[in-house]
Amino acid sequence: MYKVGIVGGTGYTGVELMRLLAVHPQARLTVITSRGNAGMPVAEMFPSLRGVLDLTFTDPDIEQLAECDVVFFATPHGTAMQSVPELLDRGVKVIDLGPDFRLKDAEEWSRWYKQEHACPELLEEAVYGLPELNREAIRGARLVANPGCYPTCTLLAVMPLLERGLIDTKQLVVDAKSGVSGAGRQAQVRTLLCEAGENFSVYGLPGHRHHPEISQQFRQIAGQSVGLVFVPHLLPMIRGMEATVYAGLVHGDVDLQALFEQRYAGEPFVDVLPAGALPDTKSVRGTNLCRLAVHRSGDTVIVLSVIDNLTKGASGQAIQNMNLMLGLEETLALQSPAVLP
Amino acid sequence: MYKVGIVGGTGYTGVELMRLLAVHPQARLTVITSRGNAGMPVAEMFPSLRGVLDLTFTDPDIEQLAECDVVFFATPHGTAMQSVPELLDRGVKVIDLGPDFRLKDAEEWSRWYKQEHACPELLEEAVYGLPELNREAIRGARLVANPGCYPTCTLLAVMPLLERGLIDTKQLVVDAKSGVSGAGRQAQVRTLLCEAGENFSVYGLPGHRHHPEISQQFRQIAGQSVGLVFVPHLLPMIRGMEATVYAGLVHGDVDLQALFEQRYAGEPFVDVLPAGALPDTKSVRGTNLCRLAVHRSGDTVIVLSVIDNLTKGASGQAIQNMNLMLGLEETLALQSPAVLP
Amino acid sequence: MYKVGIVGGTGYTGVELMRLLAVHPQARLTVITSRGNAGMPVAEMFPSLRGVLDLTFTDPDIEQLAECDVVFFATPHGTAMQSVPELLDRGVKVIDLGPDFRLKDAEEWSRWYKQEHACPELLEEAVYGLPELNREAIRGARLVANPGCYPTCTLLAVMPLLERGLIDTKQLVVDAKSGVSGAGRQAQVRTLLCEAGENFSVYGLPGHRHHPEISQQFRQIAGQSVGLVFVPHLLPMIRGMEATVYAGLVHGDVDLQALFEQRYAGEPFVDVLPAGALPDTKSVRGTNLCRLAVHRSGDTVIVLSVIDNLTKGASGQAIQNMNLMLGLEETLALQSPAVLP
Amino acid sequence: MYKVGIVGGTGYTGVELMRLLAVHPQARLTVITSRGNAGMPVAEMFPSLRGVLDLTFTDPDIEQLAECDVVFFATPHGTAMQSVPELLDRGVKVIDLGPDFRLKDAEEWSRWYKQEHACPELLEEAVYGLPELNREAIRGARLVANPGCYPTCTLLAVMPLLERGLIDTKQLVVDAKSGVSGAGRQAQVRTLLCEAGENFSVYGLPGHRHHPEISQQFRQIAGQSVGLVFVPHLLPMIRGMEATVYAGLVHGDVDLQALFEQRYAGEPFVDVLPAGALPDTKSVRGTNLCRLAVHRSGDTVIVLSVIDNLTKGASGQAIQNMNLMLGLEETLALQSPAVLP
Repeated sequence: MYKVGIVGGTGYTGVELMRLLAVHPQARLTVITSRGNAGMPVAEMFPSLRGVLDLTFTDPDIEQLAECDVVFFATPHGTAMQSVPELLDRGVKVIDLGPDFRLKDAEEWSRWYKQEHACPELLEEAVYGLPELNREAIRGARLVANPGCYPTCTLLAVMPLLERGLIDTKQLVVDAKSGVSGAGRQAQVRTLLCEAGENFSVYGLPGHRHHPEISQQFRQIAGQSVGLVFVPHLLPMIRGMEATVYAGLVHGDVDLQALFEQRYAGEPFVDVLPAGALPDTKSVRGTNLCRLAVHRSGDTVIVLSVIDNLTKGASGQAIQNMNLMLGLEETLALQSPAVLP
Repeated sequence: MYKVGIVGGTGYTGVELMRLLAVHPQARLTVITSRGNAGMPVAEMFPSLRGVLDLTFTDPDIEQLAECDVVFFATPHGTAMQSVPELLDRGVKVIDLGPDFRLKDAEEWSRWYKQEHACPELLEEAVYGLPELNREAIRGARLVANPGCYPTCTLLAVMPLLERGLIDTKQLVVDAKSGVSGAGRQAQVRTLLCEAGENFSVYGLPGHRHHPEISQQFRQIAGQSVGLVFVPHLLPMIRGMEATVYAGLVHGDVDLQALFEQRYAGEPFVDVLPAGALPDTKSVRGTNLCRLAVHRSGDTVIVLSVIDNLTKGASGQAIQNMNLMLGLEETLALQSPAVLP
Repeated sequence: MYKVGIVGGTGYTGVELMRLLAVHPQARLTVITSRGNAGMPVAEMFPSLRGVLDLTFTDPDIEQLAECDVVFFATPHGTAMQSVPELLDRGVKVIDLGPDFRLKDAEEWSRWYKQEHACPELLEEAVYGLPELNREAIRGARLVANPGCYPTCTLLAVMPLLERGLIDTKQLVVDAKSGVSGAGRQAQVRTLLCEAGENFSVYGLPGHRHHPEISQQFRQIAGQSVGLVFVPHLLPMIRGMEATVYAGLVHGDVDLQALFEQRYAGEPFVDVLPAGALPDTKSVRGTNLCRLAVHRSGDTVIVLSVIDNLTKGASGQAIQNMNLMLGLEETLALQSPAVLP
Repeated sequence: MYKVGIVGGTGYTGVELMRLLAVHPQARLTVITSRGNAGMPVAEMFPSLRGVLDLTFTDPDIEQLAECDVVFFATPHGTAMQSVPELLDRGVKVIDLGPDFRLKDAEEWSRWYKQEHACPELLEEAVYGLPELNREAIRGARLVANPGCYPTCTLLAVMPLLERGLIDTKQLVVDAKSGVSGAGRQAQVRTLLCEAGENFSVYGLPGHRHHPEISQQFRQIAGQSVGLVFVPHLLPMIRGMEATVYAGLVHGDVDLQALFEQRYAGEPFVDVLPAGALPDTKSVRGTNLCRLAVHRSGDTVIVLSVIDNLTKGASGQAIQNMNLMLGLEETLALQSPAVLP
């Protein structure tokens, strides 16, 4: 049994990690920290874990965390980077679900997060944890930057096209929609049921923090800058994310369906739907799956991509990365089908 | 045109008052206060009022409020009682949507609200603003205590039975359910869409603050104490409240349907459904209506009562009271049918 | 008082017409037909109309309808065109909320609706009922084709740009999202709460019936064909529609905010938000408003447009058209602000 | 591996059985029937099962079903009773999720279901499949009548009190609330998102079919008739059920908390909350758990009981029964914690 720690366990990605670890046959959660709730049993905050997880939140303590094989950071930006260097030094593998290690350029990171980066020297080493892109590097990594939800949903939709140079890189439109859980478990007016329920809105214009993360990966895949127009919207529901991607085809006579099927053949968590099918978020809720469909309208290719923002978009992908880093079967703890309806 | 002020206009009862006043032909909102948001245009906080209401939140100022004919307090407990005496002295009529003047007994008030009452001498004068019970007194009142949402929903269901001595007063069960807007517009975790959505829970046990308010009115109507078991629940929706009342009949051979129809004949905002019908909250959403149905199972009478907690349960009833206090047509501004679906 | 009839009153656009007519000071609903429910009181099907509307569904009868000043058709495609010629002959003004008279080309209509058009000679005369585009023609019309919800939401977003030739007409992306009420009140599995709730999906690919309607209007405004990519999505909520429009700017140095404000200055039902603001559907729910915001990302203009699909997207706009056709104040019955929250 | 069949697999209890069987280590689904959808791959109807279940719906065929070790009927009333006798004769164990074998009295069954019972001789043998009541009998059973959702939720709340003779059997009030999935996957207007969303209503008065089922079990436990007032309500959400039970205590000085904890000590799927706690449905969603809390108001005991209507209220309990009938570990396939939020 591998020992696992979670720093910052009171948010939605934290409780999702716990749900998945609860059924993991080879990993056991041994430490869970929360500055604000030290001393409270986890099951008191999350009654869904009564009888499942007999742990108590503790104050973050580097000695305790250092005894883990893997530590997840489920913390806001700026937290992980304070502790990661020491944990790595002590031989702990780290997966950061926050954004501290996603951007390669420390200055760009500072511009978006309005503070200096505490350990820019680790940015190059950190592996961007999208297994469909970087599986081998993840296997050997000490430090994985778990991708954001929008980037995961978008990259899986665009990678096959970009890798083959099939689309116009001058302008690519990503119209993305997320369930409210993406905004976290903080008390705030705009995510109250009375505000976000029965409502649909745009947010994050002019610039969402996932924009540079997507752009960086696009650039790396395409070998050049890609003109990205990214507009996120807020859905009146709890879990689920969809991206509708519009790109101009530069090579008209390509079998897009075959391209996507081949690119993702063998991928355990990417499901290319049959030609003509249309995905919905419900079919992936609570699962680590991305379902994709590729359509075409004239010279525009339209890719539809759905994930659960908390699972493949965060904690499920983090477990997938942990499995890879520990040399385990990649799909462990990630195989339950979606709860339907 | 009568001049109207609102103290504490940033919550859901505040914006509901504004919505209704916007179509009132004889009253005009001239002052709206908010300590935290003074200087902000109302339409900036509530875009639904863009083009409808050209007012700015101001700090509460007694001089400004004193120029109004009527002032509504849409404030948490303990606020209205600080300013009401002076406003009354200066000839302003006051309607308090909070609980400061609902209980007649200052000591009981203190027990529930954990503070001394600032003007216990006004408790006797304050008229409990349920027009179906106290219409004439409201017409002549300077100070109206607008009933709570649960009490309104419950009293209208029980009054006909209690007034006629038809039910066992030893034990009366009120199983009540409210939409989340009843919890207000404060940022808090339990009313986030992710927490309250797709969820149903009990709250307020062992004792909800509306319990003594209902009991007091029961006692007054019945002329004796009534054993009330009151259990509130939280519904995964925005607006709407239902109470299912269970009472033991002490006189078996009464035509309950006729009783309810006669009791509420001529009432503009109480609709007794035909025998056998079942009400739903959607049919009263955004309206000042209470819909009632009376059923029977053996010796138990079951009364089903639905209101919109923010309209008949708060701001709509407050406007109804204002209309009565000003000698206007009782239904002004309250006649739009529910938006369906 | 003008006399009004509705053919096909049991769907959501029918009950929305009734809600609005209930508060109309100069029009009175006198006939409402339903083949399947003749004899049933309207308020029995729609309890929200109890005490508001004392009418009974009748079988469609041309004699009865001919006594009306205006008749609305709230029927599926293929119904209105059977009766409209005779009603026009008898001097009745007609507003069709269905698609029978929206396309000018009878062959195109037949391709999309898989049947012959019954009165192609009326297609030219029928006025496309978007007041912001055709106000004067509507004033003089006998027959108005009320626009679809997606076309209304899209056209108001794009018109100012297209009229001025500011955008690339080769490709324009409209990513549109609609509440479930757009799918109507028919019993079907995909719109059950258990299917459409907590879910988000794409539909209508490869071709939605509103596509040719939007394209036709674009062509007319631009004087040339416009390459439209239109992808509709289904939102897990009842009312509300949003379109996010992406267009390439061909003239870079234009003040888009000023353009939109000038274009819609004086329009009672189009509200251009201040620069930088972002609209949500809740602020227009139940109202006849379209709220617009215009943003820019490089050479791409992004227009955000929200309406209530049943009001400005159907029945509210139909009442607006009726007001114009009868020479009444355009805003009658359409001035209540949105119910919030 | 045991072979499992499902008759009638296109409803919500069918797909829930499939979800749970997909992770069952010792049972494999080999046959799934549907008269209307024979020939369609299961994963086409339920995309959540793509890659999980490679089966196709077939017409019901007794030969094929007879090869199974266990057959579940997830069918409306009147279907199972036609085939069960033959399956039993051929040595197949049967679990009926419908109501055909829940009532012991064939005449009572006929009154509620308006048809003759096809095999009344099996009613006595059929074991009522509530493991917390009949575990040993279930272990030895050929035929299990899986309880209804309301009866499961209610019986677990009341059993400890009734078994000990602590409550007044003259009148017991059960105010129950169910998510919409309890109404099934049939196309019908009242369960559309537009009708059932943002709405709360009572239904099933004067008599719901689960009433006689609860009464029968009460009578058996108490040894006498119990006066049951049962009022079901419809919640605007997908999954989840709550019952608030009100009963008069006849012995005042009992430690209710201890009573419940002792009664359910060792039960894997009943979780008695700590004194003072309040359950919510979200904490049991998708799980086989019943969470209970017991409160007191004067002489009235209030028991709060929550389950997932499709899991402990139907398919989860059916799997639990299967595990018992096959001599397997009772909790197999039923141990994943709830998906939260």
